[in-house]
Amino acid sequence: MEIKDWGEEGFIEHLMHRFSSAKDSVGIGDDCAVIPSEKESWLITTDALVEDIHFIREQIPPTELGYKILAVNISDIAAKGGDPKYAFLTMAIPENLDTDWLNQFTEGLQTACQKWRVFLLGGDTVRSKKGIFLNLTLIGSANPSEIKYRDTAMPGDIICVTGYLGDSGGGLKALREGIPQSEEVDKLLQAHFHPEPDPMAGKWLAAHDGVHAMMDISDGLHCDLRRLLAASKCGGEIELSQLPISPALQKACWEQGWDAIHLALAGGEDYCLLCTVEEKSIENVEDSFQKKFNKSLFPIGKITKEAGRLEYQKEGRPISLEIQEFKHF
Amino acid sequence: MEIKDWGEEGFIEHLMHRFSSAKDSVGIGDDCAVIPSEKESWLITTDALVEDIHFIREQIPPTELGYKILAVNISDIAAKGGDPKYAFLTMAIPENLDTDWLNQFTEGLQTACQKWRVFLLGGDTVRSKKGIFLNLTLIGSANPSEIKYRDTAMPGDIICVTGYLGDSGGGLKALREGIPQSEEVDKLLQAHFHPEPDPMAGKWLAAHDGVHAMMDISDGLHCDLRRLLAASKCGGEIELSQLPISPALQKACWEQGWDAIHLALAGGEDYCLLCTVEEKSIENVEDSFQKKFNKSLFPIGKITKEAGRLEYQKEGRPISLEIQEFKHF
Repeated sequence: MEIKDWGEEGFIEHLMHRFSSAKDSVGIGDDCAVIPSEKESWLITTDALVEDIHFIREQIPPTELGYKILAVNISDIAAKGGDPKYAFLTMAIPENLDTDWLNQFTEGLQTACQKWRVFLLGGDTVRSKKGIFLNLTLIGSANPSEIKYRDTAMPGDIICVTGYLGDSGGGLKALREGIPQSEEVDKLLQAHFHPEPDPMAGKWLAAHDGVHAMMDISDGLHCDLRRLLAASKCGGEIELSQLPISPALQKACWEQGWDAIHLALAGGEDYCLLCTVEEKSIENVEDSFQKKFNKSLFPIGKITKEAGRLEYQKEGRPISLEIQEFKHF
Repeated sequence: MEIKDWGEEGFIEHLMHRFSSAKDSVGIGDDCAVIPSEKESWLITTDALVEDIHFIREQIPPTELGYKILAVNISDIAAKGGDPKYAFLTMAIPENLDTDWLNQFTEGLQTACQKWRVFLLGGDTVRSKKGIFLNLTLIGSANPSEIKYRDTAMPGDIICVTGYLGDSGGGLKALREGIPQSEEVDKLLQAHFHPEPDPMAGKWLAAHDGVHAMMDISDGLHCDLRRLLAASKCGGEIELSQLPISPALQKACWEQGWDAIHLALAGGEDYCLLCTVEEKSIENVEDSFQKKFNKSLFPIGKITKEAGRLEYQKEGRPISLEIQEFKHF
């Protein structure tokens, strides 16, 4: 049997079965591990980017790659409601890699470190036979009573997202299909190369009692919502007409004949937040979020009782969709 | 210019220049980063193992590789005097990797986690186009007043190591040259596959006032001692006849015509500790170490005043050696 037969979920199950967590900590299976400490808990996350799997060296500017390896980890800390603090970078690189490339890469990482006030405190630099492999471990902290998890959604909760869905997936599609530059294609490429996770918004949502569960969307709404439903032992209904699709993606889909709904559900790498809010608080949370961050919290559906059942609806009627998910293996 | 022209040291200098550390923490350039906390400080280290650079898949049993990815990180925590606690593993693996291999790998890692009471709390599992890439981040803790660094050696200190040197390098050489099995070759292979870092010994040494500086030996005594001397702005003299060389390595060198001194200085992957002890405490430290751990602390030389000058001696007389160091790039 090969690892692709297990898939990522099967592999993670294997690991969870083999490695039991410390009693006082949250381990494998959420966005971050949580280690309780006296006044504040530590949040730890780690994410890798591999050449020819997650990026094509000739297609992504090195400054953007340096920025992105931190940004994707910031997204996980944001999803638990934490403040990002310390980063550790491992780079495996071929010995003939140009130092200009490296210089631009570290410049992009530095920009990201300054933006989110993160200190790069260490790592490992090793040689690879071929290809670039990046891994970043990010440590953050949070008030223990204000951390949100993915297993705490309740039936009746409103499912919300904090940003447009599918732009990054559209950017990747434009790269792969060699779509010529235009204003909207540039916006999609920007979303793909330069994700904007928002730990301030994550922290605000996590501190709100009306918000029940939270995680980030990195593998697409379809895939990540299913994870949240599985962890919370609930079901969900999503109203497709409420999915936030950007004007740029709408225009590109119109011009290229792409399926905007499919990109919004499974394009991946959105790096915005997915949360569930109790019904009685939703108006207040939406309004306050808009006022505080000058951007919308988008309600897109509802948590239901039937564990594991995810239903898509179009104007209230169930609709059957075939979704090609991103597969890690 | 290519990264191999910078070398690892040049690359680390570039990173240290670009990324300033947080004021209250120790960052890039020692075995671990140190983050102060109220009662105990956090130690964080990260080490990678890359296929065809650090190991050949057909030559190392997967259980040993799983054990080793934790062991090499334990060595860094031991070098600062800390207790290892939480691990985060990133694996980039090809999709056709056999699940039996993976099962054995995680079994070896589990054995190591149990041995050192470490909890695996998370990580990332991703696909690689070709080859296995492993990265482990290990978090430990230590009493802030009992952490040792590599920049605190003093002229007059006795340079000591906690174990045999060169066995692992001998094991690697035996693998590369296809030397047939024998009792001594098995011992060298065991040292190469199954390093035995000793955080209890590290903690004991770190807590001793007479011990001034400490680090682990991962790239060979020659390379790592030069790092300690550079950090401490001192020089050193090593008496070659005092280098601890195991009977197994002596026998293998005799039979194969290998140079035992060269393997002891530059074979690499010893994963024992290198420390400097003030002269007036050395007898007491040696005796107590022997009693406590039932193994020797080996004095091998002396710290001198001349910054950066490393002299090898044979029975007290300077000797010139040409040493081929392990190069990361």
